[in-house]
This record gives sequence, structure tokens and C-alpha cells, in this order.
Amino acid sequence: MQLVIGNKNYSSWSMRAWLLLRAAGIAFEEIRLRMDQFAGDPGAAATDSAFARRMAGLSPAGRVPVLVDDAGQAVWDTLAIAETVAERHPGHPGHPGLWPQDAHARARARSLCAEMHAGFGALRQHCTMNIEFVRPEMGPELLAAHPALARDLQRIDAMWCDALTRSGGPFLFGDWSIADAFYAPVVSRVRSYGLPLSAPAADYAARVWAHPAVQDWVAEALAEHDFLAGEEIYRRQRD
Amino acid sequence: MQLVIGNKNYSSWSMRAWLLLRAAGIAFEEIRLRMDQFAGDPGAAATDSAFARRMAGLSPAGRVPVLVDDAGQAVWDTLAIAETVAERHPGHPGHPGLWPQDAHARARARSLCAEMHAGFGALRQHCTMNIEFVRPEMGPELLAAHPALARDLQRIDAMWCDALTRSGGPFLFGDWSIADAFYAPVVSRVRSYGLPLSAPAADYAARVWAHPAVQDWVAEALAEHDFLAGEEIYRRQRD
Repeated sequence: MQLVIGNKNYSSWSMRAWLLLRAAGIAFEEIRLRMDQFAGDPGAAATDSAFARRMAGLSPAGRVPVLVDDAGQAVWDTLAIAETVAERHPGHPGHPGLWPQDAHARARARSLCAEMHAGFGALRQHCTMNIEFVRPEMGPELLAAHPALARDLQRIDAMWCDALTRSGGPFLFGDWSIADAFYAPVVSRVRSYGLPLSAPAADYAARVWAHPAVQDWVAEALAEHDFLAGEEIYRRQRD
Repeated sequence: MQLVIGNKNYSSWSMRAWLLLRAAGIAFEEIRLRMDQFAGDPGAAATDSAFARRMAGLSPAGRVPVLVDDAGQAVWDTLAIAETVAERHPGHPGHPGLWPQDAHARARARSLCAEMHAGFGALRQHCTMNIEFVRPEMGPELLAAHPALARDLQRIDAMWCDALTRSGGPFLFGDWSIADAFYAPVVSRVRSYGLPLSAPAADYAARVWAHPAVQDWVAEALAEHDFLAGEEIYRRQRD
């Protein structure tokens, strides 16, 4: 099984798919492709980039991540990858770390993941994932400038606190699950941009950040030393 | 089991959840809420609307559709509803019409649904679902004005043709499945705005439109005679 991903510093959807496999202890071959269609000026389309050409052969949607299973079939989009992996690795204790075992918790975990999958547009627009970019002093200004960002953050904080209260923690549904993998890139954004959280949400974010799989991803992101202009919204060059 | 939905004329995500239940023959109580937060001027937030107040008591995300199961638990977001319903109604012939039975087809169906769930932004922005609005003469102008819309349509056409070639039809994965429910609102947009399709894709769209569950939804949408200004992008009033 192969997982095709983009730059670890920038690709939040790649991070989710990679984390959910790694944290569940499922072996896979990682294929990392530099997202060079974003290397030029922001806004410039580069459909003839090496990345675009390689992706065209891998997935009709042309985006990372893509799971290529042992039969050679491509499964694209993080949420489809999550469901397919969970279906093919059922049951504790063989593969903990996927969906929660309790049916009601599982339905709720799916609701949280789907909400992340299609939502939080302001957070994604104004606080793009950029792991090596750490400017926590930006938080208050960003929140004041973008009321929709403040609403996104408020909803995420409330969601995390509610889930932690129901489960007792340490993760959203008790043990680590796909839902934590889905919100891990939000934790990175909270760190990069200094977005304020309530105490229980901040403690949860710290636990996510300290998770070994997250730490592995972050270390590899920091080792990239790449700069994709089209993914940068607050820098013109690496510092 | 209850399904809380919005206006049938406008709410494409409500339509997906409703269709997947109806087409699979799963009984549910429909609770339709008028989306009066969109009734005033476009762009005006109406967080104190009757819709917003009712939704606040039903789902923390505050959006339709919401499934309330027999235990009273809310499951929100169409994709989470789809997975939860499929999990609770496994297996042919008890409940055909959910995910395809073949594991590879199922993984592909999930990929297509997830791609719809998070994608096709230009189609959703410029061709909002509005079942009673039929102006097929607009298509060429819209496509010329919005290259991203043309790309969205091209991808959808290619996706439908590829799936139909693999399955042999008549629906994307042979028999009707959740994937067809997910693309049914696209069929409505194709009709409303006169978006051109290849012959196999147009034939598929006609089959979806003729499906009894789709026809039921459409008839009830046309009977609403409502007008939500915030959902209208090309009209100032009903004709």
C-alpha cells in the first residue's frame, strides 16, 4: 500500500491521511511529491508542473493525498481514504486508532470529520498550514480582521471541549482516533498564528502536538526547507 | 429516525441525505425547516432567525441536514449521515441503494462522494441549486465568464463517463447508490443553467432526474413557492 502526499510543511490533507495510518500502526510506503505547481507566483496556474503530470497518472482528481492499495486501485480524498482504511482494518485490538468502537461515538466522530472536511473556510483561507512558520503575535490581529475566522475558532474550541467532556479524554473520543488526525493540522495552525483557545482545548492541542506520529510528521516538515510561493500568504521568502 | 432538512428548492445537501434514505427504502420522519436566515438581503447574517434558533437546539454545527436517530442522537453533515446509515443498514438485499457491494467499487464511490463534498467550488458558487429556476440559455455565458466552472463541469463529465464505463450503468456504480444521491443536485444545476454534457453524461443525468425519489423531491420543491433572497444569485423576485 502506498500513500502519495505533498509537501509535509504545507499539505494539511496529506498530513491527515498520513497520520491516521501512522497512528494506527498500519504499514505503508510513503511517496512524497513536491507541489511545484505552487512554486511560482501565487495565483499562477502551473498545470504542466511535474507534480500535475505525476498526479494525472495517479488520480483523476489530481490532488494529494492518494492511497494506492495493494491491488493498484487509487482511493483519493482524505475522507474516502479514512473510511476505506477503517473498513479494511476492522476491530480492536488489531487496529486501534481508527474510528471509535462505540457506535454513537463513531457517528459523532464522523460528523466532526465531515464538518472539518467541508468547513472552516476562513481558518483555511487566512491561516494556511505552514508548520515552519511560527508567528504567534499575529493571532489578535487576524481575529480582529476576520470575524469569520473568530467564528471558526469558537466552533472548533466548543467542539473539542464537548467531545473531551463526553469522552473524558485524553483525545476527542478517548483513545486517539481518525478525528484527532483530522484536527491535527488545526493544532499546527493554532501554534503558527497564536490563535487563543480555552484551557481544555489548549491542553488537548498540546497533547495532539506531543503525539509521536505528529512529532514525526513535524520533524520531517521542518527538514524540508522548501518554499512554495503559492502556499505562502504572509512571506515572500524563507527567513 | 428523523431527518431535518431545509427548503427543498434550495438545499442541495438536504436533498442528498433525503434521497439516499428514500431511494434505499429506509423509513424516516421528515422535518422541513424554512431557511429564513437567507430570506432577507443577500449577505445579511440573521443569526437570530427562527431557523438558526431551531438548529441550535438540534446540532452544534447549526446546519441542515441533521439525522436524529431513534436514540435521539444528532448526526450532522451529509457524508457522516451517509456512512452512519450505511453502517446501520448493511447488506443486500435488505437495503440496496447505499454503498456498492463490491469493495473496490465502494472505495471509488467514496472517493467520488468525498470529491463532491469538498470540491467543485465554482459550480456551487455560480450555479447554486434552485430547482424552480430554469434558464438553460445562461449556460454558454456562465461557462465563458468562469473558466473554473468549465473545469468543474469537465471533471464531473469525465468522472461520470468513467464510472458508467466501468459499471455498465445505468447509474454510476450499476444500481443506484449513495454516489448518485450525491450528484443528483448537480443534475438539477445542469438543467437549471443549461450546462452542456457529453452524450453519455447527459443520458445519465436524464436517468437520475427520472428516478422516482428524485421526482418526488422535485415535485415537493416546486410546490414550495418560496423565495429566499440570500439563496438567489440571478433573481430579485419570483417570476
